Amino acid sequence: MNPKPWGDTAVVGKPVSRIDAYERLSGAAIYSLDVLLPDMLHAAILRCPHAHAIVKKVDASAALAMPGVRAVLTDADQEARIPWHPDAQGKPVSRLFDPHCRCEGEEVAAVAAETPQQAADALRRIRVEYETRPFVIEMEAAHRAGATQVHDGGNYVYPPGTGDTERGDVAKGFAEADVVLEETYRTSCEIHTTMEVHGSVAKWDGKRLTVWNTTQGVFDDQAALAAALKMPLSDVRVIGHYMGGGFGSKLNLGKYTVIAALFARKTGRPVKLFLSREETFLSVGNRPAHTMKLKAGVRKDGTLTALELNGIGTVGAYTDWTTVGYQVADLYLCPNVRVKELQVYTHAGQSRPFRAPGFPQCSWALEQMMDALAEKIGMDPVEFRLKNIAAVSQAEENKPYTSTGFAECLREGARVFGWRQARERKKGDGAWVRGAGMAGGMWGYAGGPPSTAIVRLYADGSVNLNIGASDLGTGTKTVMAMVVAEELGVPLDRIQIESADTATTQYTGASGGSKTVMVDSPAVRAAALEVKAALVQMAAGQLQAAASGLSLVNGEIVSADSPDKRVKVQDLKTLKEQQVVVGVGRRGPNPAGKVIRPFAAQFAEVEVNTRTGEMRVLRMAAAHDSGRVMNRLTYENQVFGGMTMGIGLAMTEQRILDRETGKMVNANWHDYKIPTMKDAPADMTCVAIDPHDHECDTTSTKGLGEPAMVPTAAAVANAFYHATGVRMTSAPITPAEAIAALSKRRKG
Amino acid sequence: MNPKPWGDTAVVGKPVSRIDAYERLSGAAIYSLDVLLPDMLHAAILRCPHAHAIVKKVDASAALAMPGVRAVLTDADQEARIPWHPDAQGKPVSRLFDPHCRCEGEEVAAVAAETPQQAADALRRIRVEYETRPFVIEMEAAHRAGATQVHDGGNYVYPPGTGDTERGDVAKGFAEADVVLEETYRTSCEIHTTMEVHGSVAKWDGKRLTVWNTTQGVFDDQAALAAALKMPLSDVRVIGHYMGGGFGSKLNLGKYTVIAALFARKTGRPVKLFLSREETFLSVGNRPAHTMKLKAGVRKDGTLTALELNGIGTVGAYTDWTTVGYQVADLYLCPNVRVKELQVYTHAGQSRPFRAPGFPQCSWALEQMMDALAEKIGMDPVEFRLKNIAAVSQAEENKPYTSTGFAECLREGARVFGWRQARERKKGDGAWVRGAGMAGGMWGYAGGPPSTAIVRLYADGSVNLNIGASDLGTGTKTVMAMVVAEELGVPLDRIQIESADTATTQYTGASGGSKTVMVDSPAVRAAALEVKAALVQMAAGQLQAAASGLSLVNGEIVSADSPDKRVKVQDLKTLKEQQVVVGVGRRGPNPAGKVIRPFAAQFAEVEVNTRTGEMRVLRMAAAHDSGRVMNRLTYENQVFGGMTMGIGLAMTEQRILDRETGKMVNANWHDYKIPTMKDAPADMTCVAIDPHDHECDTTSTKGLGEPAMVPTAAAVANAFYHATGVRMTSAPITPAEAIAALSKRRKG
Repeated sequence: MNPKPWGDTAVVGKPVSRIDAYERLSGAAIYSLDVLLPDMLHAAILRCPHAHAIVKKVDASAALAMPGVRAVLTDADQEARIPWHPDAQGKPVSRLFDPHCRCEGEEVAAVAAETPQQAADALRRIRVEYETRPFVIEMEAAHRAGATQVHDGGNYVYPPGTGDTERGDVAKGFAEADVVLEETYRTSCEIHTTMEVHGSVAKWDGKRLTVWNTTQGVFDDQAALAAALKMPLSDVRVIGHYMGGGFGSKLNLGKYTVIAALFARKTGRPVKLFLSREETFLSVGNRPAHTMKLKAGVRKDGTLTALELNGIGTVGAYTDWTTVGYQVADLYLCPNVRVKELQVYTHAGQSRPFRAPGFPQCSWALEQMMDALAEKIGMDPVEFRLKNIAAVSQAEENKPYTSTGFAECLREGARVFGWRQARERKKGDGAWVRGAGMAGGMWGYAGGPPSTAIVRLYADGSVNLNIGASDLGTGTKTVMAMVVAEELGVPLDRIQIESADTATTQYTGASGGSKTVMVDSPAVRAAALEVKAALVQMAAGQLQAAASGLSLVNGEIVSADSPDKRVKVQDLKTLKEQQVVVGVGRRGPNPAGKVIRPFAAQFAEVEVNTRTGEMRVLRMAAAHDSGRVMNRLTYENQVFGGMTMGIGLAMTEQRILDRETGKMVNANWHDYKIPTMKDAPADMTCVAIDPHDHECDTTSTKGLGEPAMVPTAAAVANAFYHATGVRMTSAPITPAEAIAALSKRRKG
Repeated sequence: MNPKPWGDTAVVGKPVSRIDAYERLSGAAIYSLDVLLPDMLHAAILRCPHAHAIVKKVDASAALAMPGVRAVLTDADQEARIPWHPDAQGKPVSRLFDPHCRCEGEEVAAVAAETPQQAADALRRIRVEYETRPFVIEMEAAHRAGATQVHDGGNYVYPPGTGDTERGDVAKGFAEADVVLEETYRTSCEIHTTMEVHGSVAKWDGKRLTVWNTTQGVFDDQAALAAALKMPLSDVRVIGHYMGGGFGSKLNLGKYTVIAALFARKTGRPVKLFLSREETFLSVGNRPAHTMKLKAGVRKDGTLTALELNGIGTVGAYTDWTTVGYQVADLYLCPNVRVKELQVYTHAGQSRPFRAPGFPQCSWALEQMMDALAEKIGMDPVEFRLKNIAAVSQAEENKPYTSTGFAECLREGARVFGWRQARERKKGDGAWVRGAGMAGGMWGYAGGPPSTAIVRLYADGSVNLNIGASDLGTGTKTVMAMVVAEELGVPLDRIQIESADTATTQYTGASGGSKTVMVDSPAVRAAALEVKAALVQMAAGQLQAAASGLSLVNGEIVSADSPDKRVKVQDLKTLKEQQVVVGVGRRGPNPAGKVIRPFAAQFAEVEVNTRTGEMRVLRMAAAHDSGRVMNRLTYENQVFGGMTMGIGLAMTEQRILDRETGKMVNANWHDYKIPTMKDAPADMTCVAIDPHDHECDTTSTKGLGEPAMVPTAAAVANAFYHATGVRMTSAPITPAEAIAALSKRRKG
């Protein structure tokens, strides 16, 4: 049974500070990295320094003799021969310490010692004999016939043609177009570099393993660990109480977790294994580089006639592929669409899902192309997009969206940004020129069941909320507490949350795909409603009134008919007897035959120095249809954070592999540039478009975390074009790239 | 809906070793005493060395200046002025560090330091100025007019007459009797001296307090702590994972817990505060001494005509009273009964519930009286008792018992003991003489709701069981796992239990009153049945079969009609999608209008040295009606442990207060003698009488922990009488008391 949608809300939608703000800011919050256990050992990993090598011999005898060293693990240890890295067919192609190292940073050996320093020192005493091999690090090269092979059988992850899609008649579509444009767009490889590094603490109690992990999903890790160690799920406990960011890099079980567990079992002591910042650059994942050849046809009236995308992506050395075609096939009305994608292996770090995997890349291509088409047909870019709004999901058999606020995102975003004025503003006549650009976007995923939540109301009216979700730093706990506060009228500071512990909290899938709020908040709401119904029932007995006439208002149950009939929750006799009321809530199914999608439009004004190539993003405005705003503060956190990350894609972030050695040359926060406060515009605005979508889920929410960064880079690139007249097709737009392009125009 | 009672069981009832045996024996189990937290301080308490004194001044300046000392708490600290010790009307009469010390061991000050040694050293530097006062330590003295007052208003805890009960016409009953006997019986004060000492670790995370406590009930402690510190329940978390015995002394919140919490708040660091063994003798409770004047009338045919009990008990310095009249009013058929009890304050340690509070004392009187009456009328003691079996609870408005196996306990106990032969055996003609005695007994309490349990079955068929109960060392976790194993066919080693944590486990009352199995196992069973029903439902869909024809057998769901229709739990498609099945079970109400009581009969053969007064218990047999045997091993553990404790009451245990100073002179394990392996009979037998009581609860269990020690001491005393012809009315029967009584007879 679906509960009624909220009307006016008392708590939900308001700007509410994090309920764990004190703990996070004071240092009282125990992140997995902070876990200290008696007798704990510290482990460290020796990594392959070559892009491609065979480990011929590992001699750890000197390391084992070092002070404080308690154990070493290599591929020679039978218990460490755990299959790893499934290929596209699910067959593992590697091992925990596989002697065949297919990229820099692969795990070769590990040491556990009394201190982290002793472990690090011992690593240097492990003698490894490597046989280096030829390597291929660029996807175009890997794609070529006769290229060095990453895996036996060639460099295609899937046979070419797999997953290609087509609708309508593309050739006919191009023939009908007034304007056809074709362009190749490129995005660079971005590294997941979360505030909190990756790692685990592992401890055995008899046959039971407990792991404190920095993870986006404790239950997913539990399942993966149980499979890796061949244990029943009941014997594997994964805890992930505080998290410092994941962005997709903490969705999968890390080798470090298994290594910590093996060491803990071997030594009979708890073991902590956290990666250094530098190690994370090599080994925890990335948003792979993409090359997208996009061809588009449009009629003068703004009707799209055909779209054709040919993409090449790379997964790195092992599969975890990212496709980019979804928005081409779905975002704008277009009858004739062809999408072809290739995925190749390279001798580089494995890709992993990274905040809206594939979507910012696709936007980089599609939204610049839309900008170019609009110019060609002399139409305003916003108007051009408004002309092509879809009410159904063309990529999903033309099923209707539960809602789309895309048109309103475009209109409202343009209004708050002052789009017309910005486009008409004088661009400047010195070195610095200004421009305004925009882009649309969507996110192509909606979560669904299972998710269970338990709300327990105590005799004093305070609440314990039990959810399995990890709060990645996004404010999940705060939002869930707000849902309880809304339904039960309990102040937020009387709601205590237990989360992200496979042994003690309720099942939910990992927090990824912008699904957490839309999947878990309806479960929490259902649990709270069950508690409310039980309280009303108790009051009905005590007040001798029909339950149907009673409602819970500000901690009191009141009769609508005779307002003197009222009782405070903590004065309910049955509650005193029972001590608690427990409500169990479960996430219901998504609506059948419909598609849930969030939409966005973002607008940027930039300033470009035509002499140095420097660019500054002066201001941005975002308009998002992510359904209901649950917490205005966390909503803005997501949008502003997403836009800042999008600026990284547009302007600064880029893994650089040395062509001579195949090694990453900027595996650190000094040389790999993520945007700082100085790179983010001081002026960021966010409009929430709420389509009152009561179909998507019982709290009317859609995903937000990922769409927040989808259009950003393209909007910036379009603004650069507006300022300079130069189209930057390769991200990031560094000063060097910009000045090269600008000077080419001057010469041209 | 009540589930059907079990027929033949596969797991329940079998002798099953503790599921946490490895952890307990290897030292891997983390008891609260084992909790080590980073930066933890250690606290210690300064206690009043006088039986009655006023603290005039506390100077802690020297202590505060000691190395490692971080904080001191005294009554001068405003935050420590927490009301304590409610009187009979519920009004607190003391404070955490009340300057009025009414018994030895009262808390005067406390210190927190970097190490336990530094804390202990600092205690000795606190200068306290005491004004000593007169004291009264014996209850008869406290009872006298003009006695020194423990509290203003006199030494009666309740006005005399309170709670007195009478039925029939007692004078007429005595007039109708053929034999009337009257005797005064006395039991001594026994100390709760659990294997694990008492204490807590406290830690604050922002506004939230977490306490690792050695407790019989985490939720009760949570409520008491929240009240003491004026906090919402949601902010107080109490964890009690492993326990080393409680026996009633860990039912109430201890001052040590509050002191640890205050120190932790004051210092911003975790604080551990555990009492020394010696401190526990003074401050954690006791079974108070009792004086019972019992008069009984019987006809020659064995019909009881009247019973009259006048009891005096003492609560020590603060109320927590114990009455002894229940069995007099309920155990045997008797139309005319009067029970009068007085409770007085004394300047001694406060009593607390101690394994079957009041019942072993009452048995000491009633069962010796029954023995004496039987002798007088020339009837066998077993036959005499069988003559007076009640089918209804005379103490509870003659409501019927749900079941009584008392008669069968008497008969079966006599049979397995070889009662007739033992009674007829030659007593011996040297210094050592033999005798056999027996006693009946019951327990006067049955637990009921609330209790909730959650069973979660994982996709691989393993199970996570969530219960709030504390396993006091009795095997609760093992029994609950067996219930799940029985219903779901899951092997015990694939069932993981979470227990005794207010934040993460489900509500239940404290483990006391022998209620844990009878209250919590039905909740666990209901949860497992809900999971089973869900699995069957999933299978019905998958096998295209009616759910009604399916059953879960050995991890497979099988159709009764077509046995080829079967599917393993882990192959259920819906389970794979959902990942888990969650069942929530709640304890239903007890049957209305009926009384649930366990019964027992115990038999002892002893050997007494008539020259030295030494006694040895050679063998014992117990027959218990505690409903279904859930685990034959833990059942015997309870019975044999209970009998051993009963031997302590009969023969060794006795708090000795010095008359000159009012101080306890044997506050240690050397001078206070609890029975050891050498005191327990090598030959102990236990028969379980199962009345198949399907009314008491849905697992057909009644309490066992407490009845196990109720008849023991009386059986031993009756055996002593049978051996020597001397009636020992005062417990314990030490060699000194015995030789005095025996030589009096020789002289007489």
